[in-house]
Amino acid sequence: MITVGVIGAGRIGKVHTESICNYVRNAKIKTIADPYMNEETEKWVASMGVPNTTKDYHDILNDPEIDAVLICSSTNTHSIISLEAIAAGKHIFCEKPIDHDLDKIKQVMDALKEHPELKYQVGFNRRFDHNFAAVRKAVVDGKIGETHIIKVTSRDPEPPSAEYAAVSGGMFLDMTIHDFDMVRFLAGCDAEEIYVQSAVLVDPAIGEAGDVDTAVITIKMENGAIAVIDNSRRAAYGYDQRAEVFGSKGMAATTNDTQSSCVLSNAEGVTGEKPLYFFLERYMQSFATEVKDFINAIENNTDTPVGVIDGLKPVLMGIAAKKSVEEHRPVKISEIKY
Amino acid sequence: MITVGVIGAGRIGKVHTESICNYVRNAKIKTIADPYMNEETEKWVASMGVPNTTKDYHDILNDPEIDAVLICSSTNTHSIISLEAIAAGKHIFCEKPIDHDLDKIKQVMDALKEHPELKYQVGFNRRFDHNFAAVRKAVVDGKIGETHIIKVTSRDPEPPSAEYAAVSGGMFLDMTIHDFDMVRFLAGCDAEEIYVQSAVLVDPAIGEAGDVDTAVITIKMENGAIAVIDNSRRAAYGYDQRAEVFGSKGMAATTNDTQSSCVLSNAEGVTGEKPLYFFLERYMQSFATEVKDFINAIENNTDTPVGVIDGLKPVLMGIAAKKSVEEHRPVKISEIKY
Amino acid sequence: MITVGVIGAGRIGKVHTESICNYVRNAKIKTIADPYMNEETEKWVASMGVPNTTKDYHDILNDPEIDAVLICSSTNTHSIISLEAIAAGKHIFCEKPIDHDLDKIKQVMDALKEHPELKYQVGFNRRFDHNFAAVRKAVVDGKIGETHIIKVTSRDPEPPSAEYAAVSGGMFLDMTIHDFDMVRFLAGCDAEEIYVQSAVLVDPAIGEAGDVDTAVITIKMENGAIAVIDNSRRAAYGYDQRAEVFGSKGMAATTNDTQSSCVLSNAEGVTGEKPLYFFLERYMQSFATEVKDFINAIENNTDTPVGVIDGLKPVLMGIAAKKSVEEHRPVKISEIKY
Amino acid sequence: MITVGVIGAGRIGKVHTESICNYVRNAKIKTIADPYMNEETEKWVASMGVPNTTKDYHDILNDPEIDAVLICSSTNTHSIISLEAIAAGKHIFCEKPIDHDLDKIKQVMDALKEHPELKYQVGFNRRFDHNFAAVRKAVVDGKIGETHIIKVTSRDPEPPSAEYAAVSGGMFLDMTIHDFDMVRFLAGCDAEEIYVQSAVLVDPAIGEAGDVDTAVITIKMENGAIAVIDNSRRAAYGYDQRAEVFGSKGMAATTNDTQSSCVLSNAEGVTGEKPLYFFLERYMQSFATEVKDFINAIENNTDTPVGVIDGLKPVLMGIAAKKSVEEHRPVKISEIKY
Repeated sequence: MITVGVIGAGRIGKVHTESICNYVRNAKIKTIADPYMNEETEKWVASMGVPNTTKDYHDILNDPEIDAVLICSSTNTHSIISLEAIAAGKHIFCEKPIDHDLDKIKQVMDALKEHPELKYQVGFNRRFDHNFAAVRKAVVDGKIGETHIIKVTSRDPEPPSAEYAAVSGGMFLDMTIHDFDMVRFLAGCDAEEIYVQSAVLVDPAIGEAGDVDTAVITIKMENGAIAVIDNSRRAAYGYDQRAEVFGSKGMAATTNDTQSSCVLSNAEGVTGEKPLYFFLERYMQSFATEVKDFINAIENNTDTPVGVIDGLKPVLMGIAAKKSVEEHRPVKISEIKY
Repeated sequence: MITVGVIGAGRIGKVHTESICNYVRNAKIKTIADPYMNEETEKWVASMGVPNTTKDYHDILNDPEIDAVLICSSTNTHSIISLEAIAAGKHIFCEKPIDHDLDKIKQVMDALKEHPELKYQVGFNRRFDHNFAAVRKAVVDGKIGETHIIKVTSRDPEPPSAEYAAVSGGMFLDMTIHDFDMVRFLAGCDAEEIYVQSAVLVDPAIGEAGDVDTAVITIKMENGAIAVIDNSRRAAYGYDQRAEVFGSKGMAATTNDTQSSCVLSNAEGVTGEKPLYFFLERYMQSFATEVKDFINAIENNTDTPVGVIDGLKPVLMGIAAKKSVEEHRPVKISEIKY
Repeated sequence: MITVGVIGAGRIGKVHTESICNYVRNAKIKTIADPYMNEETEKWVASMGVPNTTKDYHDILNDPEIDAVLICSSTNTHSIISLEAIAAGKHIFCEKPIDHDLDKIKQVMDALKEHPELKYQVGFNRRFDHNFAAVRKAVVDGKIGETHIIKVTSRDPEPPSAEYAAVSGGMFLDMTIHDFDMVRFLAGCDAEEIYVQSAVLVDPAIGEAGDVDTAVITIKMENGAIAVIDNSRRAAYGYDQRAEVFGSKGMAATTNDTQSSCVLSNAEGVTGEKPLYFFLERYMQSFATEVKDFINAIENNTDTPVGVIDGLKPVLMGIAAKKSVEEHRPVKISEIKY
Repeated sequence: MITVGVIGAGRIGKVHTESICNYVRNAKIKTIADPYMNEETEKWVASMGVPNTTKDYHDILNDPEIDAVLICSSTNTHSIISLEAIAAGKHIFCEKPIDHDLDKIKQVMDALKEHPELKYQVGFNRRFDHNFAAVRKAVVDGKIGETHIIKVTSRDPEPPSAEYAAVSGGMFLDMTIHDFDMVRFLAGCDAEEIYVQSAVLVDPAIGEAGDVDTAVITIKMENGAIAVIDNSRRAAYGYDQRAEVFGSKGMAATTNDTQSSCVLSNAEGVTGEKPLYFFLERYMQSFATEVKDFINAIENNTDTPVGVIDGLKPVLMGIAAKKSVEEHRPVKISEIKY
């Protein structure tokens, strides 16, 4: 039985807490920390059967009974808390991204090298999604032969607020970062070069804030395959999350998940449901699976499925993507120094 | 907070236990009873955080702290325990069928009339399935107009063992009973007359045991619609569970659920996954929802969504179906006396 | 090169004429007969490159250059013209049904026995449809193993006019007759017994005319399989034409054809096109193929793919279906004497 | 009635001849020219009811009875014959591409300016395909709002022979040229800039011949939308031809056409058919429609649906694509001088 502390009781902290309480038999949460801990949150914590709350996450780091921490705090604290938690000898599940600053990611990587006994997992949950995992399995099983083309469609139902967009690091580091990870996951190798064609088509305010909201990103992979991601901050029909891997023997492709398979045929046409609304609905199963796998990696002393290097690489890709937009040219990942 | 006892720790008892522990915030299980309670089961009970076990379900009925019981024991005990639980003042969630003997169902109904304060729900879980619920919602919302034709396809991946078949009451009372309920649910009314064309095509042993394994069942509904169920005890591609309601304005129809939406295109064709294997995989969500709704009905003092009368009616239909096979003619439900 | 005469220049006569002119290289039409031949029709005949027209079909029967006739006149003349054409030594393609009167069909069968050199084909075009042919091929290729259940959905976009309904012989002989043929085609054997549950749900006028507009028809096939047809005279979403064959090794099933595969995803849902409007749109390819096969049967002196016996059997089934409605019981085909 | 001459009796010449003979009522073919005219071809010509053949296409150009010519000869003769046909006062349907040499296209354009009475249509048949036409219609009807992203998937079942590849002008001018046209058609505007990520993954011989066989092509359109084409010279599952337009109000997308909708469910999975094999099967309907529309444009004296400018633009895009590969950078269409 692994004893866990959860740092951050926001949306994703709650998701992970509920996953552990409901599905992860070999873990129990002892303490949940949040600087804004209030009565309502405490009530929720109690309803989950978690015994302790605190406003100071150091209470978790200092608790010798706690084996592992889930870092679900705001992005700008991920690397700092990671370093403190490593120093405190805790296994770490850290929400993505580790940091937007490559130096800080490097510090975490260096610290981990000193503590090879500690497990570190980054929250790229989509790898654990039933659909994408099935595509990856088809690739691994040789069903599509050598990979030639990888296509990822990733469109949000609604753009973020202007405030959020401002601190998010931009679309590539906030939203596309998941797709960069997906491309690496499906290809089973790293990216070599990136070219971005982007635009502001959804909301001029996003453009005024110096960001883009629509993009097609072409990526040359190290295995010779070509990947392409298409992003939009707003799909009128909802959260569009698809992938397709095409190779010498065939293609594996997914469609969106819906609330039900019910299709209505009437005088207007033959109509099925829209995709599940957003990531909490769409990826609930994957959030549970990634945490379960993290706990199992600790218990069985095996590698975590998404290591610290997997936290670094999509950030490099995001920075290369930004550079491609600025300099309007293909950018090699090797140009990004850290 | 509703305190619950679970009677029967077999497959379905475990499903309901896990649902309550994982999803139902306003209920907690105090005791689980099973005549074959052993070390392994006790370990599982402990892992769920349930404090007590017993071999004698009367311990649950006699416990004044327990508000509600889930009857998950073998079919032949459902009505007896129902009667005892009513006498003990417990709310009851009873697995289907209440009984194969109409007299015994009637006794339960009579006992409930004396205790209008007690909630009684029958485990027709498929009503709570996301797909069938969406079809029913389309009907209720007037999307298909007046209902003309209802089609239910229900095929199991494997026939039951000869031993099970012998005590199951036959295909109509064991398997089709769910489809009889589905037809009532989708039509929103009762059946008037039933005609069965059946055969033994899957396994001669089933025929030797006096049962059938393949059937097409036509039902005239009280609202004038015609329903048709097609059953097989063995579909080579797995658990086939579909429904279609056709009416004056259109049609609502479902397809099967699969593990993922991944489709492989290669030289052989374009291949998606088979349906989810069997009822535990396919209907997991519906099992959780039905129990949640049962607990809510107690807490809010509202009617349960599937009452004792809904437990009676499909049994009447099953008996009429048997009679239709024996006498090779359409049989009115009103011919079945109780 | 086979020389053909077409008797009847109505809707279906035009379809067959265009098929022969456009697709059938080894046939040419010499004469088209229609009692209502007028200027407009003559213009159309000329545009097809057909040299002759006549108001009297005997001109075709008496023309020694003509090898084969297509009987596309009104239903009540099919058997009479068939007999005359046999006497005149012509090969015959006769639109379905040969007749509603079993005696008249028998006369045609008897006449054909005297002329084994003459080819006779009945216009059950759906056997030649790409979808249904693919299902049949799956059955023949052993892909589904032994057949257990056959399901045919057949719903028209609009009910016929009251006048047409009056002379059509009723839904079973006019509309379902195609589905009876389809069931025989998919099963590869004859029907043994029929039970009909029917209703008047679309249009009370149809009921007043003594007919039904909605039906579920259960058929026991001679190979032990159970077939079920569901019919409606009006599907709000258009012409619904599907089939499904379920057997010991799997299932082959079709969906409807649409004008395009274009799917629109928007805030309302994910919407594809309705089925192709009606039989002329839906079955155009099958009309061409059946005539091509007829001409080839003549040229190669092989059996036609749909013989006179295939014209008889669905009529027997239709009469049994009517009897089942009248007497409200399952009716054996062997009860229908001819 | 328009009198037509067909120049070139190869594969596509035959397709257009059959379309005109079978479907185009207001046109008749008088002469078919082919330098390799032989007995077999003459037999086919006769079977189509076409009266004359010749080895010298000038016989067609010099025939005052012929109103229009279809140029179906080898690519390197398209512009020359176009110029001669313009001089001879013939309307022209010219197979794509007009030429790979921009100067020669310019000569044709200039010659046409002198003869505004002559119709000129380029054979971009896919615009007339039922699926792509339906997507375009959704765009024109405002169903998807402002266009943001256009995706075209275009993969051949088999790479061309090394010999063909050598003279074809390379993948971009031979194969992608259709997709460049499709992007312009779906966007309703021209391309502004192109970036290509390409590779040799299918066949090293193609690389040795200086060409590529796999590519992802990103295109900035003049209306601000981003288009992306993915190409492969070999898809193991067949001819993959899909398009998707995503905009502010939704998305319109197509799937591949198949021979039938028959789906087989068995122990291995749920399997539908592969796409129709190659362009002759997939685009037969579009070939007929484009020629029908050409003849109508002549008869009604209206603009042809795909003018000479539509023949020029995709060639510009193809040349820009080649330059993008050579210089490994985004290339503006305005850089390509002519």
